[in-house]
Amino acid sequence: MIEPVETPVFDTVTILGAGLIGSSIARACQVSEAAKTVRIYDANTDVRARAGKINLGDVCETVEQACDGADLVILCTPVGMIETAAKAAAPYLKRGAILSDVGSVKASALKDMQDAAPENVHVIAGHPIAGTEHSGPDAGFAQLFSGRWCILTPLEGQNEAYNENVSKLSKFWEAFGSTVELMTAKRHDLVLAITSHLPHLIAYNICVTAEDMEQVTEGEVVKFSAGGFRDFTRIAASDPTMWRDVFLNNKEAVLETLGRFSEDLAALQRAIRWSDGDQLFDLFTRARSIRKSIIEAGQDTAAPNFGRRNLEDDSPAE
Amino acid sequence: MIEPVETPVFDTVTILGAGLIGSSIARACQVSEAAKTVRIYDANTDVRARAGKINLGDVCETVEQACDGADLVILCTPVGMIETAAKAAAPYLKRGAILSDVGSVKASALKDMQDAAPENVHVIAGHPIAGTEHSGPDAGFAQLFSGRWCILTPLEGQNEAYNENVSKLSKFWEAFGSTVELMTAKRHDLVLAITSHLPHLIAYNICVTAEDMEQVTEGEVVKFSAGGFRDFTRIAASDPTMWRDVFLNNKEAVLETLGRFSEDLAALQRAIRWSDGDQLFDLFTRARSIRKSIIEAGQDTAAPNFGRRNLEDDSPAE
Repeated sequence: MIEPVETPVFDTVTILGAGLIGSSIARACQVSEAAKTVRIYDANTDVRARAGKINLGDVCETVEQACDGADLVILCTPVGMIETAAKAAAPYLKRGAILSDVGSVKASALKDMQDAAPENVHVIAGHPIAGTEHSGPDAGFAQLFSGRWCILTPLEGQNEAYNENVSKLSKFWEAFGSTVELMTAKRHDLVLAITSHLPHLIAYNICVTAEDMEQVTEGEVVKFSAGGFRDFTRIAASDPTMWRDVFLNNKEAVLETLGRFSEDLAALQRAIRWSDGDQLFDLFTRARSIRKSIIEAGQDTAAPNFGRRNLEDDSPAE
Repeated sequence: MIEPVETPVFDTVTILGAGLIGSSIARACQVSEAAKTVRIYDANTDVRARAGKINLGDVCETVEQACDGADLVILCTPVGMIETAAKAAAPYLKRGAILSDVGSVKASALKDMQDAAPENVHVIAGHPIAGTEHSGPDAGFAQLFSGRWCILTPLEGQNEAYNENVSKLSKFWEAFGSTVELMTAKRHDLVLAITSHLPHLIAYNICVTAEDMEQVTEGEVVKFSAGGFRDFTRIAASDPTMWRDVFLNNKEAVLETLGRFSEDLAALQRAIRWSDGDQLFDLFTRARSIRKSIIEAGQDTAAPNFGRRNLEDDSPAE
């Protein structure tokens, strides 16, 4: 749970893009009081109107109005729009301001922001490891980042002022209940390729495979999805634009990870074809242990079935 | 929610194997009153003792004691043990009794039971499409089958007495809140290959791929698993013995489905390599729609993140 901080970390925070993450940051700022003022801008008129209606913050009609004098400007757009957004914000960024983002790929975002930002602005890329399968300004909520990690990928070899701003940005995320980890953009992109990008790719892929099975109807897939399939569909419901951009911008690490996955899958396929029960058993036993570690690390619920609703009334003692 | 039925469907129901499914049937019998007497036998002495301690039913010390005079005997063992269990029960089955099971593969189970059972016993294979990632007698709970499908795969071209027993077994599952669907064993095995077996195989596989990435530590995978990876680990925590048996016994359908999955994945891989954003976007958009159908069919929760605990205190209005 977020508690209000003693003193605001920033006077004015500007959020460009009021989707799931942008609107959650706005909500988290309100609850944590980490920013005195929250300004919102979204390129989409309808989203701007909605953001105003649900009181996400001070909704601005132009990028200039939103960025002018802000201490922190966070780009909350799909990765493919970071360049455009950074270029749009650049002329209005005040000296000493922080320019950050929340994209799922960091090397490309960092480069796009650096190329656009003036010299006297601190570019620090960021990525909260949190999200849901829902999109848009109504999907946001204050606790999204609570208990989750936030990775910052600062530039290397910077001066003291820069490093102080990295600390300040860390405090901002910590106010939302996140734990901050610093790493290079390249390392981030490799780690996330396996923990996030590959899982999404596979989830999307199995949905398509299921839909294309002409021997099995979509109705049957839906009916009997509780056998395991439905777990994959949650993340396959994520925003297609966001994920297209992730794969286009983290090509190298994704292809490397995907190559390993396919090799491992081919080995499993072979074990099935040749009825190698021992190999299957050993692999399945290894896979089981990682779940235990994730539960122990507080990164997932130990409740069976993720505590899905239909279990609530009669769940076993844990 | 299960309500007690007006009159019991069976006098005596015997459960052979007190794991997740066996113990859940026992619990569901108690709450629904679908059986006057529930008898339990498990080949494992510790499991038998535990089943007695947590009051799953009348725990028997031998298969003979468990099966003698029972109206319905349900084999709740891994698929690879159905043959052994059916052979053990066969000598003690009373004339006109039903012999059923709950295994995830139906053609092999049906054959194993038919081969073992005497002529005057009704062999009707079954498969409740429900489960959690937990195993053992303590994992069971009465509501596991509520709102879920149960597939029965009866033999074809049988007499009236047999068909009446199929209706009776259907009523039994309906008493647990399940909806019963009848299909051939072969069709079941094909449908479940895509809705359950392939998802489990892929979930196991990605866990192994993640563990083997020497550039990324297991600690990092665990820390940042909320990016999507953790969703896969739930079903990869399922019982390795059970799943080994599934793949060994549904080889043909699994290999066919897996072949299609790999082809589709290769196409996605190519789209990433050649930066074909439009193809990625179209595929991701198609995948999204199946989630919607699953929610509408009541087979999953619409709550973001499956309503995982850390969202409970501040979840968005749905």
